[in-house]
Amino acid sequence: MVLFKNLDTCQAFEVLKKMPAIELRESLKKERISDWWIPHAAGFYYCYAFAPVDDAIIDELEALAREQQLIEKYRMLTEGAIINTSEKRMVLHHLARGQLGKPVILNGQDLEVFYREEKHRFYDFAKKIREGKILSSADKAFTEIVQIGIGGSDLGPRAASLAISRWAAAKGRARLRPWFISNVDPDDADYVLANIDLSKSLFVLVSKSGTTQETLANETLVRDRLQRAGLNPDKHIVAVTSTSSPLAHNPHYLDSFYIDDFIGGRYSTSSAVGGVIISTAYGPETFEEFLEGANEADRLAFEPSFRKNPMLMDALIGIYERNILGWPATAVLPYTESLSRFPAHLQQLDMESNGKSVNREGHPISYSTGPLVFGEPGTNGQHSFYQFLHQGTDTIPLQFIGFLRNQLSQDMISEGSSSRQKLLANLIAQIHAFAVGKKDENLNKAFPGNRPSTLLLAQELGPRQLGALYSHFENKVMFQGFVWNLNSFDQEGVQLGKVLAKKALNAISKGESTDDELLDAFIVSALSAVKNHGD
Amino acid sequence: MVLFKNLDTCQAFEVLKKMPAIELRESLKKERISDWWIPHAAGFYYCYAFAPVDDAIIDELEALAREQQLIEKYRMLTEGAIINTSEKRMVLHHLARGQLGKPVILNGQDLEVFYREEKHRFYDFAKKIREGKILSSADKAFTEIVQIGIGGSDLGPRAASLAISRWAAAKGRARLRPWFISNVDPDDADYVLANIDLSKSLFVLVSKSGTTQETLANETLVRDRLQRAGLNPDKHIVAVTSTSSPLAHNPHYLDSFYIDDFIGGRYSTSSAVGGVIISTAYGPETFEEFLEGANEADRLAFEPSFRKNPMLMDALIGIYERNILGWPATAVLPYTESLSRFPAHLQQLDMESNGKSVNREGHPISYSTGPLVFGEPGTNGQHSFYQFLHQGTDTIPLQFIGFLRNQLSQDMISEGSSSRQKLLANLIAQIHAFAVGKKDENLNKAFPGNRPSTLLLAQELGPRQLGALYSHFENKVMFQGFVWNLNSFDQEGVQLGKVLAKKALNAISKGESTDDELLDAFIVSALSAVKNHGD
Repeated sequence: MVLFKNLDTCQAFEVLKKMPAIELRESLKKERISDWWIPHAAGFYYCYAFAPVDDAIIDELEALAREQQLIEKYRMLTEGAIINTSEKRMVLHHLARGQLGKPVILNGQDLEVFYREEKHRFYDFAKKIREGKILSSADKAFTEIVQIGIGGSDLGPRAASLAISRWAAAKGRARLRPWFISNVDPDDADYVLANIDLSKSLFVLVSKSGTTQETLANETLVRDRLQRAGLNPDKHIVAVTSTSSPLAHNPHYLDSFYIDDFIGGRYSTSSAVGGVIISTAYGPETFEEFLEGANEADRLAFEPSFRKNPMLMDALIGIYERNILGWPATAVLPYTESLSRFPAHLQQLDMESNGKSVNREGHPISYSTGPLVFGEPGTNGQHSFYQFLHQGTDTIPLQFIGFLRNQLSQDMISEGSSSRQKLLANLIAQIHAFAVGKKDENLNKAFPGNRPSTLLLAQELGPRQLGALYSHFENKVMFQGFVWNLNSFDQEGVQLGKVLAKKALNAISKGESTDDELLDAFIVSALSAVKNHGD
Repeated sequence: MVLFKNLDTCQAFEVLKKMPAIELRESLKKERISDWWIPHAAGFYYCYAFAPVDDAIIDELEALAREQQLIEKYRMLTEGAIINTSEKRMVLHHLARGQLGKPVILNGQDLEVFYREEKHRFYDFAKKIREGKILSSADKAFTEIVQIGIGGSDLGPRAASLAISRWAAAKGRARLRPWFISNVDPDDADYVLANIDLSKSLFVLVSKSGTTQETLANETLVRDRLQRAGLNPDKHIVAVTSTSSPLAHNPHYLDSFYIDDFIGGRYSTSSAVGGVIISTAYGPETFEEFLEGANEADRLAFEPSFRKNPMLMDALIGIYERNILGWPATAVLPYTESLSRFPAHLQQLDMESNGKSVNREGHPISYSTGPLVFGEPGTNGQHSFYQFLHQGTDTIPLQFIGFLRNQLSQDMISEGSSSRQKLLANLIAQIHAFAVGKKDENLNKAFPGNRPSTLLLAQELGPRQLGALYSHFENKVMFQGFVWNLNSFDQEGVQLGKVLAKKALNAISKGESTDDELLDAFIVSALSAVKNHGD
């Protein structure tokens, strides 16, 4: 019997609150640093030696994981339970990466088969595009592929595409150049369109509902530019959408690939949302490896032994930092330029999933939920906000990601070491410096230490490792949502802005009044203040 | 007599702590929304109607600003006082934008004249490059300009360059294409180099000390690639550095432009650090307008009347949010794609300046200082982390930036409105939604409201407005540093990592042991864990 209950009704939580916090600096010993590594999927290791926990706390976090039945709930989720309670939907992004348990059947259809068939449909499409068997309306081979989407249709696929572009180039798999248009700001689209040859450009329009305002506005803009260039837009755009959307089965698209309501936007990189652009740009085999890496991590996430399950451990360490130590934020710090947009993806994944104040039944809760997530790649961040992390008045737990090798084969030796060695040395030095600190009589040069971190480390970043990373954080966020007793799979918090934006848009574009006098006053004063100033 | 003292010794701070917080939702009235706008430099308006303050709190914040003598300290700074106490340096980035008070004379030299002369030297250089009067070693006109730098030599100039690239293109001023290489990860440089024709590429090497590890490693890489392409590196690289650095007066550079120790990295976009690439790519007149906009805001920052000085007001609202309301973070949300990297610049500017725990005399302080700063452009963020901002368990004050027009002249009408109108409608709707919220019996669809924001709004974003924005935040951070009694102009928090990275690098590249057994254990376990896993 699986029981959903609030964190503050858990026995283990009460025990944790009474346990003394550790002094990280004092707890660090050689054995701990050598031993607290968990083998992960795709060759990753997860190091928690620098996390603010000791064996006693870990044991109690394990008890909390058991008490909240995290593995059982994960099992329920993968086998088709209605985990998205508010929208009464199943949650099936894992299934896009492979069957994990019992088949999920809906109206007689095995959904794993549906996802697999769609995948093979876009693999075939990608092959034809890559081999020049499908040509543009100007009879040219496509060399550019442009995704039009926003939120989950943009951030996850964009971060993934960027993460493996150099790897794919080094492996000779990069065929089309990927681009992304997301913002309703027309300057976004125009920048991309100014840099590509439209007669060789394929567009992937991604909107599950087929009604996303920004995406449709950008489609209008792109169709207009294609037409003006004497091209037939219908032969340059494919749609990724749900079968019930206005974009589905529509002759105005070159092809259409389908997703369903059981894979949320921020979890959709594993579906056609990420799959069409990645398999077309870098080859179906590249996307398949991404899925395999994710599936390997998904399978590991079932591991019941706490110290062998890096996703469970990472999730519970985050709970400890948020709800016992009271820290409001987490920094994600990948030491590779290729993951430069991965923190932006995690910002959506984590903050949109668990940034909530009611539990899965819609009742208010009285404890903190998902943290603020931010980050930039190292070493760049070291020259920016690390001052705050080292010597600021707040403690921010840090999530490092590192690799032993770079993606392109060329590296340079300067002053006796390669750039990759410099990057790794910086990563290791920072983790050590944050934890250990440094005494100094001049307090301006002293470092308090005790600033905790965890590390995901692998040999290199390829599609398999990238898939494991996506899965790691998806499963971490899922486990944390279970601990907090949230529905991590809806996003009601974005609705009010949409409704009000429609009203404001009518007021601005048609001069209509909204039904809200404060909103009217704001619109009038905003427009008149700035206009009065003159040019 | 100017007195430097800690915030918690201020009378006004004690008064503020005892004043009741306002209920923002209840305080919003038509008059407040219409009237609480302050005219700013370059056509900006600053709206604080949605900030969590009322007249009584504002009066007391003004008293705090007077008590901490913020305008007087700003005056001291611009006239050459040793405001950077730990490094015993003046702080003169304002002077790069024009004389504000008494001349600053050092060893008989008027530093304003030094900055101005260097500026005219790089303006002349930029003109010659743009007109093809200086050619590459392959006798070709330069079409690409690549900045090599990290931290302040990267983030500020990169955000600024991105911010005006479309504007400059629309105005016919974009001549060379700007690129940036920062990360020591060689994948960063290789990505840029794969996209440009080296025989037409000019590099700007930026390092004040001339010893920045990442920047020198990237120079080695670039020189190697130029040489392999049969080009003469000495004719493709200019240096921006201090007169005492190893890069100065060095015949291995095409030219050199000088900065001094009185303009810190994160404040250096106004100097040659930002000036060489911006004036070469977009024309000296564009950079001059940037400086004029910044100077206009710098002059406004002296305005003693609190309600007429948007930088002072913004700074003190931030203090109130941080030290009275206890909020740890601030989101920066520009509603234009052109400012997509501006939050990354502000992250450095704010967190490196004020992320500190000792006062300007090196004594520990017992109140919170600089907040965590993060952000992404709207409307993209709406589809990502706004869920957390609307319905999460924490309150994050929001700093919106918006414009009435886009930068490129083309826009599209779809469904009866332009993209720019959609963007503005979203901006206005979000500010309203955050403040007012929405009641709903279904708590999952309810919005608490009371989530405060401020807004900087202008007609359009050109170089003049961009300069005003840079100055706004520099002056805000400066005023806040004075309130907290910090030295906002050093960054000792980055030193420990540098020292330890050198040790770790020797251990990794030469197999040497560091003098720290914990660090040794970490290096050994990191390398062996991942290597043992095999490929």
